Amino acid sequence: MAEDRNSHQGKQEQKITMLDKFVMKMRSLPREICRTIWKIGHEDPRRVIHALKVGLSLTLVSLLYLMEPLFEGIGQNAIWAVMTVVVVLEFTVGATLCKGLNRGLGTICAGSLAFFIEYIANETGLVFRAVFIGLAVFFIGTAATYLRFFPKIKKNYDYGVVIFLLTFNLITVSSYRVHNVLKVAHERFYTIAIGVGICLLMSFLVFPNWSGEELHNSTVIKLESLARSIEACISEYFQDQEIVVEGRSSEDPIYKSYKAVLDSKSIDETLALHASWEPRHSRHCYRYPWQQYVKFGAVLRHFGYTAVALHGCLQSEIQTPRSVRALFKNPCIRVAGELSKVLMELADSIRHRRRCAPGLLSDNLHAALQDLNNTIKSQPRLFLGSNSNQTTNMIALAAAAANQKHEKDSGVSLSSVKTDTSALIEWKTRRVTDQSERKVLRPTLSKLAITSLEFSEALPFAAFASLLLEMVVRLDLVIEQVEELGKVAHFKEFKSDIEIIIAREKSQRECRRELPPNLPSQGIE
Amino acid sequence: MAEDRNSHQGKQEQKITMLDKFVMKMRSLPREICRTIWKIGHEDPRRVIHALKVGLSLTLVSLLYLMEPLFEGIGQNAIWAVMTVVVVLEFTVGATLCKGLNRGLGTICAGSLAFFIEYIANETGLVFRAVFIGLAVFFIGTAATYLRFFPKIKKNYDYGVVIFLLTFNLITVSSYRVHNVLKVAHERFYTIAIGVGICLLMSFLVFPNWSGEELHNSTVIKLESLARSIEACISEYFQDQEIVVEGRSSEDPIYKSYKAVLDSKSIDETLALHASWEPRHSRHCYRYPWQQYVKFGAVLRHFGYTAVALHGCLQSEIQTPRSVRALFKNPCIRVAGELSKVLMELADSIRHRRRCAPGLLSDNLHAALQDLNNTIKSQPRLFLGSNSNQTTNMIALAAAAANQKHEKDSGVSLSSVKTDTSALIEWKTRRVTDQSERKVLRPTLSKLAITSLEFSEALPFAAFASLLLEMVVRLDLVIEQVEELGKVAHFKEFKSDIEIIIAREKSQRECRRELPPNLPSQGIE
Repeated sequence: MAEDRNSHQGKQEQKITMLDKFVMKMRSLPREICRTIWKIGHEDPRRVIHALKVGLSLTLVSLLYLMEPLFEGIGQNAIWAVMTVVVVLEFTVGATLCKGLNRGLGTICAGSLAFFIEYIANETGLVFRAVFIGLAVFFIGTAATYLRFFPKIKKNYDYGVVIFLLTFNLITVSSYRVHNVLKVAHERFYTIAIGVGICLLMSFLVFPNWSGEELHNSTVIKLESLARSIEACISEYFQDQEIVVEGRSSEDPIYKSYKAVLDSKSIDETLALHASWEPRHSRHCYRYPWQQYVKFGAVLRHFGYTAVALHGCLQSEIQTPRSVRALFKNPCIRVAGELSKVLMELADSIRHRRRCAPGLLSDNLHAALQDLNNTIKSQPRLFLGSNSNQTTNMIALAAAAANQKHEKDSGVSLSSVKTDTSALIEWKTRRVTDQSERKVLRPTLSKLAITSLEFSEALPFAAFASLLLEMVVRLDLVIEQVEELGKVAHFKEFKSDIEIIIAREKSQRECRRELPPNLPSQGIE
Repeated sequence: MAEDRNSHQGKQEQKITMLDKFVMKMRSLPREICRTIWKIGHEDPRRVIHALKVGLSLTLVSLLYLMEPLFEGIGQNAIWAVMTVVVVLEFTVGATLCKGLNRGLGTICAGSLAFFIEYIANETGLVFRAVFIGLAVFFIGTAATYLRFFPKIKKNYDYGVVIFLLTFNLITVSSYRVHNVLKVAHERFYTIAIGVGICLLMSFLVFPNWSGEELHNSTVIKLESLARSIEACISEYFQDQEIVVEGRSSEDPIYKSYKAVLDSKSIDETLALHASWEPRHSRHCYRYPWQQYVKFGAVLRHFGYTAVALHGCLQSEIQTPRSVRALFKNPCIRVAGELSKVLMELADSIRHRRRCAPGLLSDNLHAALQDLNNTIKSQPRLFLGSNSNQTTNMIALAAAAANQKHEKDSGVSLSSVKTDTSALIEWKTRRVTDQSERKVLRPTLSKLAITSLEFSEALPFAAFASLLLEMVVRLDLVIEQVEELGKVAHFKEFKSDIEIIIAREKSQRECRRELPPNLPSQGIE
């Protein structure tokens, strides 16, 4: 009985707290909404402007209906102009043009075809006419829908085909009852043209947002964030103190900076598509090669995968001891610094639409690689070397490092000093005794399984260095693409050495700003 | 003169060949089009069915207009039903439902608001009424457009907001001239409901395509193609003969199989969004966790980046000699085989909607890792080892390998035996003498710059082995997500050991099928 009462009381309390929570939530809701509204406008003020533009356009187009003299001329069909504005006016000029022209083209094609059908159907009796119209609707509907699966059509003219189908059906079907179809179609086209006209005026003349500009800027930003993520990776790898990163990887700043590059495919393609509809707005008289930006984006993603792998080295379960890593700190930081300097310089050259300097894969990068090479060669036995008399030295060092590590986190990684067999046995025993708590056990299991294998502790560092090298190789592809872009987009010719030096110094300053303050870029060990 | 005539003749010939080409192209065009039509239908026969469904729906909805008794009841407004069918009927059930319900919801909201505005406006004079309507159009237009930038609204209700704006404007503006607005709105809603009804019937009952099914299947396919790409990477890495891969990397079969995984983000999200609108079509009575598939997709992409890095090892400029690689062939192939076996088993468990076996990160994988570990430890001096008396042996081996390589491609990689300084000097000289042919020179330059650094030839293999390990670690995250998916989606409980064995044997057979016939999975060296 007492238990019953207790549980009843407990339930009531739970209900009260839930109610409280609900009231609290309701109270904070208005503030929450206001904050979101402000945030969205603050992130990109062009959004506010676009919303105002749409409101203004709608009001303008409504005047066709509201003002007596205009209404006299256009009449009931003005409503099509309103519809057009709602559907066509998009955020960027390119998107608006793409939709507007598609809508116009679709309407014209559909109108022509509908008149042809009408012409044939007119010759026959009422019943046969209905059957004929029905068949035409079926066949044209099927064909147009099938057409939308064609990749080229889907990419450029999807909306146009929908409008074609819509208009064709409207005209064909209503021609059965209404007899001045020519007038209906004519008026419809007329008012749609007015709507499209208002949309184009608004998006061209009032604070225009160009898809091309956005694509261009996003490319620059992607290059810069890649440079930043490489710098951050390196500085984290060679940090003196281990920082325990808790929580999900999505909150990691390094992850954030390359994530935008990895997920850029569909955004890039849409922007390039819309940009290709935009008229040239620069002084050059050629078709701007937006598809080259898409290609460049693919190469950047390819480069980005190496950055992901490099980042993976940081999060790996098996790690080279910090004392061993420290031996290679300076040359690695130097190579990474040169890498990100080149990326920054490329970003700069694209930003200012000038060709990049010919000596980009430069002496500096080469010298840094040389330096790393020398350091690796000078550390015998870590890798296939030629010096054989320093062996014990290095092994002692590694052993000391391993012991140190053992002492530090003795509770967790005890298994790393166990023999393989005993670890395996322990692992098996644990598995048998605890089958149900799979989820909790699994991370421990895998860690045990992997750390108990006494893989050489130099292995992870070798991977790290190798990935750095791989990056240098892929950087070449990136540079090639930037040059290609500069050529086809007629960027300004590269001018003098002084310009490079200035740009480099600038980007150097920027790079330095990115490094955490507690880590000097060329720290003395 | 003679030259002039020649050039004139040349131009004419050119014109003729261009004309010929054009005629040839025109002649082959119909065949080309037919082939594309057939290909698109053959790739996915559901496309043909969908096109026929749209044609049929349009014909059905046209009957409202064409048949006398139906037209009597509905009248001119039947045209709205036609429009609705064109716009709402999409490829999958989820997409159709999403659009249809958005359209319905938008229309209802807009109707209610418009009547409210109408009610206020009715109280006043004609001029003030026009101003009031204009203001309402402006404010609602601005607010609704701004609302579309909210991430949550944009994701789920973007189309609904557009329809809201459309309907609101239509009703409010036409209420100025037409006085039975209530009737207009009522009829419009009525006919839209008919249109949506036909669309839903068609997409639910006639060969329905479920977004959920598609998402489920694509997840299975992604797992399988990852498994396949790992197998292919490994077998290519340990091939006895070097295969010169020409052409762009996009035609590489390995690249193709992981590319689908890397680019899956936006497709996954769209499918999950549409799937979340679909009613449950399985026997379970809960909300199916489609978002879990999206999460799982993200983890798979994360795993995929390691596959990209592994593939990068194959294409790298610096390579460990084949003779050194061959030492590690068997254990590496074994680890990769186990990896892809686990992936195949996971794919299988998702396909049949059953929980995966608890011992997945199994003895086999552990034993394979152990094997690799032993092999690496038994090869002294490649990595930080404990055996010091086999040093010379290994170095001799590597030297022999290097010589062999040198002899084989002496023309190309001569620089790899040069001293660093001479290579650098040569590089600089070349740069000075040939500034204009940057594009042609660059690949050679970077190859020279990198291969001239005599980085340890074991470095690339260390990276390769380390990436394999990294894969095993990330596989854990994949398994965790599959378990999570199995839990929240109430997959069938895992049953007996026999089942696993059968499944494993099956996937083993599949794996073997994937290996090229000239490479035995456990080849004897």
